[in-house]
Amino acid sequence: MLYFAAMPQDRQTLVPALKNIATQLRIDSVRATSQAGSGHPTSCCSMADITAALFFAEMRFDPKNPKNPDADRFILSKGHAAPILYAAWAEAGAFDREELLKLREFSSDLEGHPTPRLPFVDVATGSLGMGVCAAIGTALNARRIKSDYRTYVLLGDGETAEGSVWEAANVAAYDKLDSLCGITDVNRLGQSRPTMWQHDMEQFARRWRAFGWHAIVIDGHDMAAILDALDEARRTKGQPTMILARTLKGKGISFAEDKEGWHGKALKLGDETNRAIAELESQFVAAAKDAAAKLPSQIQKPAAASRTAEFPKPMAAPAYKIGDEVATREAYGVAIAKLGQADARVVALDADVKNSTFSDKFEKAAPERFYENYIAEQVMIGAAMGLAARGAIPFPSTFACFLTRAADFVRMAAISNVNVKFAGSHCGVSIGEDGPSQMALEDLAMFRAEPNYAVFYPSDGVSTERIVELAAHHDGPAYIRTSRPKTAVLYSTDETFTVGGLKVLRQSASDVATVVGAGVTVFEALKAYDQLKTSGMAIRVVDLYCVSPVDRDALVAAGRATGGRIITVEDHYAVGGVGDAVAEAVADAGFGVHRLAVRAIPRSGKPDELLEKFGISAKHIVAAVTALANAKV
Amino acid sequence: MLYFAAMPQDRQTLVPALKNIATQLRIDSVRATSQAGSGHPTSCCSMADITAALFFAEMRFDPKNPKNPDADRFILSKGHAAPILYAAWAEAGAFDREELLKLREFSSDLEGHPTPRLPFVDVATGSLGMGVCAAIGTALNARRIKSDYRTYVLLGDGETAEGSVWEAANVAAYDKLDSLCGITDVNRLGQSRPTMWQHDMEQFARRWRAFGWHAIVIDGHDMAAILDALDEARRTKGQPTMILARTLKGKGISFAEDKEGWHGKALKLGDETNRAIAELESQFVAAAKDAAAKLPSQIQKPAAASRTAEFPKPMAAPAYKIGDEVATREAYGVAIAKLGQADARVVALDADVKNSTFSDKFEKAAPERFYENYIAEQVMIGAAMGLAARGAIPFPSTFACFLTRAADFVRMAAISNVNVKFAGSHCGVSIGEDGPSQMALEDLAMFRAEPNYAVFYPSDGVSTERIVELAAHHDGPAYIRTSRPKTAVLYSTDETFTVGGLKVLRQSASDVATVVGAGVTVFEALKAYDQLKTSGMAIRVVDLYCVSPVDRDALVAAGRATGGRIITVEDHYAVGGVGDAVAEAVADAGFGVHRLAVRAIPRSGKPDELLEKFGISAKHIVAAVTALANAKV
Repeated sequence: MLYFAAMPQDRQTLVPALKNIATQLRIDSVRATSQAGSGHPTSCCSMADITAALFFAEMRFDPKNPKNPDADRFILSKGHAAPILYAAWAEAGAFDREELLKLREFSSDLEGHPTPRLPFVDVATGSLGMGVCAAIGTALNARRIKSDYRTYVLLGDGETAEGSVWEAANVAAYDKLDSLCGITDVNRLGQSRPTMWQHDMEQFARRWRAFGWHAIVIDGHDMAAILDALDEARRTKGQPTMILARTLKGKGISFAEDKEGWHGKALKLGDETNRAIAELESQFVAAAKDAAAKLPSQIQKPAAASRTAEFPKPMAAPAYKIGDEVATREAYGVAIAKLGQADARVVALDADVKNSTFSDKFEKAAPERFYENYIAEQVMIGAAMGLAARGAIPFPSTFACFLTRAADFVRMAAISNVNVKFAGSHCGVSIGEDGPSQMALEDLAMFRAEPNYAVFYPSDGVSTERIVELAAHHDGPAYIRTSRPKTAVLYSTDETFTVGGLKVLRQSASDVATVVGAGVTVFEALKAYDQLKTSGMAIRVVDLYCVSPVDRDALVAAGRATGGRIITVEDHYAVGGVGDAVAEAVADAGFGVHRLAVRAIPRSGKPDELLEKFGISAKHIVAAVTALANAKV
Repeated sequence: MLYFAAMPQDRQTLVPALKNIATQLRIDSVRATSQAGSGHPTSCCSMADITAALFFAEMRFDPKNPKNPDADRFILSKGHAAPILYAAWAEAGAFDREELLKLREFSSDLEGHPTPRLPFVDVATGSLGMGVCAAIGTALNARRIKSDYRTYVLLGDGETAEGSVWEAANVAAYDKLDSLCGITDVNRLGQSRPTMWQHDMEQFARRWRAFGWHAIVIDGHDMAAILDALDEARRTKGQPTMILARTLKGKGISFAEDKEGWHGKALKLGDETNRAIAELESQFVAAAKDAAAKLPSQIQKPAAASRTAEFPKPMAAPAYKIGDEVATREAYGVAIAKLGQADARVVALDADVKNSTFSDKFEKAAPERFYENYIAEQVMIGAAMGLAARGAIPFPSTFACFLTRAADFVRMAAISNVNVKFAGSHCGVSIGEDGPSQMALEDLAMFRAEPNYAVFYPSDGVSTERIVELAAHHDGPAYIRTSRPKTAVLYSTDETFTVGGLKVLRQSASDVATVVGAGVTVFEALKAYDQLKTSGMAIRVVDLYCVSPVDRDALVAAGRATGGRIITVEDHYAVGGVGDAVAEAVADAGFGVHRLAVRAIPRSGKPDELLEKFGISAKHIVAAVTALANAKV
């Protein structure tokens, strides 16, 4: 059962009761941050009235089961106000209020900024401008599962300088996400100075209106006005609503209220804290105390129970024949389309390159689960995070180089540990003539750096298709790197692939070196194998289709079998990719790894010409093998 | 001398002359892309009239010396239309028109997207939404050098979905950059589908007006309207202008004009190309041919010659004493303030964290060269790129983790090879209670991945100050990573530091292992040294203050002197940082490197507690040294 967070509904009782809750939330926020010795109490105080109204008069949720699929969502985009989020959930009965005093301790999940270690947090926040992008994902998910739950997202005013906010504004309006309600806590003061527009509310309103939102300007400390605005937002159809609440930072604490120099500062334990709490306590309205103590009442309509579980069907085997030519980016498109038909949880997101990434194949197969974000990578990834937090399995895709546009989201998706499956096409110099701005040469470093990503780099159609399925069923974030050129199918359709696996494509008892490639360089390694064979030299060729984690034992075994000579070759810069991955894996075995990688800023040219000029072609592999083999003799 | 690109100034002669130039630019764009076999001819055709007006009736520049400090700037934010940019410069006389037919060849600098290999390109474009950010930098630079040059930036319509565009919109309006004129080529069609707003010009106009710009809507193929709009923009004071030009993609080629499916497609050589060129040639106005052939005339007023060179004064030595406690982030603030007083080219940029990064010390020292961007990291970095392209030495700074917000700009700054000096504070788990969203643990991977960045990671006040100076004078992009906790001053004020250097802090003939730290882990290594000493074991301690490039010879020598035992320890994830850097450097010497790094998503806690729990404290170093030393005995 879900609950309406319903206080008595007549305004004369409700308003003072909510004001009392707001006061309590302020007190809790001050206490917790003072005890921790750090944090943002004044950023909590400005949003206390809004929080009280949302949690105790507006939202439908179950404090004991925040993950209920039909529960309204609340995302705190200004994550530094975490203490009041925690206080609200404690007030609602999710956990004991005394826990709040463990804020920011190693032993507590009440971290400095919210993370999904807490069951009521969908995505980690604390990097500004992201919560509103994730909120689009949770709102899209309501459509996907045909639920009427609403999504509320609270932003700071300074935060609206982030471009990601305006990417979200466009997409939400374009998608007519009327289940989405934003609230901006316009408390006038940023971290280091007053914000760009301070309390000029019209600056905010005209921007949101221009971007197609219904905008409502209110006094964020006028409880009746907050309730009216939330009501108006709920009744607004065909567009999202942004409530612009004029507030005072530090509201209720006279020595800090609306004053500069108090951002991110806990009050000093003792006199300073005591004075603040005494002042806040004096703001309780005595007559409303009983009403405020009431728990939320039960929801009127049943939910969740009627929802049927989504069982994926098995995905059919790949249809490629060995020797067929297909680009892995195209095989990716084929694969997600098949996967989407087998599993209703799978969704795809695009940033206006669907005809290059081949995600348009998914759009044709499941148009209702394909989300176009136009040229806006941050909201694409943020929305994917929100969708994943609500049970979808999102595959956002674009050129791999443009995923760097959302690198901070990649980072926060790691902290959120969400089930997003990133796909990046057009990696490396092998794209050719378009030039360096379109070449991803640092994407493996970006994704491998995060400790909880599975990072795949398939070389052919069969492995791509199997890896898409593998990534979908892997619990946690994943990245799939695909290439532009057509490559030959290497694997039979019954070949199996695993997270952390690799394939040995060529081996013999007399191999002089192990050559580890991935993607297009696998084919360069195979060419080198053929060339070396004619001069009587054998090499072991490895397809490292999973670049993180790597199969340490298999790499060490290959190294041992080939005289400790390991050469890596990759269409990526020398840092953070295949070479570093293999080198770390075999470090304890005492093998040095010789790395072939792109070591200068590339330029336009033909794909083969660039592999050659930037040192990662078959010719360079042959030279490296020959040099190593001779050096050790 | 500068030139006005001045055609005859009476409109009756000028308009047909410019139309003819536009036709020529379309022909050149088609020819070049057809010859290359790839590229974006239709994206060139839509902007041809605007380009002709800008280059041959509006801008002041010298085609033979595009870097003249007082020349107007033109930035092609929609970099995929590069062929028409090249055609315009060829038409202006910068190089021979026949060069255009080498478009996208390895041997030519006329790459698929513009890069500063070409003297008339300030910053590389091709990742959308960046040119307008860089344009803010070139416009700010005009103020810095007290020049009246203007900056023009041409955007695509689809591009305005990028959040970075709206970060730029805010900052330009807030800074009242009336020397900045944007033109949006609203050609209705994106790569994979019509844009969000197609030809609904009001959607564009209301957004730009809401963000404080003067917006002018025109027909982008009406030459008189273009000239009027440019004139109106030049006369508009106190705010930037955005000209919103309604255009047709593929304009002039009837079989492609305003049609889907033609994005990023060259016409086929032969019949298809010939038909297009014949049709375009029929659009020449015969009577105006002579006028169009005229070169730009000389500018009326002298420029540049009157500008005095800026000679930096030497920077005073650091004022720290060994043993003083200062956080490197604070030492960074002290250093850039000193540097700013010594060198007028130095500027600083902030994203509302100046009181945490201590860049506020620069603001106090040189307020006119301090640029506040509020919470908008992309425009901060983009503006820095524009400033650097015009001779400034910009130091943009924020928390290191939030530099990932601008990772794509970091990448394009590498391709641009601009002199931007990034500074990121609050790295690693040592920030403590704020939690993982505020901890940079992948920043070294991001910056080290780019082949042309110098990456510094100082551990104390003296090295920080020297490194700031070193970075400023280093030719190319650089990154300086600073820490939150106070650390003891290790170096005397006359100590010298170099790009690619390191310091050996402890050594003896009996060292059993080399421990390489950087930043806070240097102090953990020194603690480990003291602890091991009591049990009679000596270690070599290295401060790797430059993480890219690294001093390979010194690392190999240290490894050789300590039995091949090297341990790295870093407040960073295991990928792409100190461990990988050292491992690659010593790979050919055959040493395995044992790496201590953060290997899981961290959480809130006390700094020392986190160093301990995530495996990078003195205790872990002692354990690693002991295990390695015993294993090898």
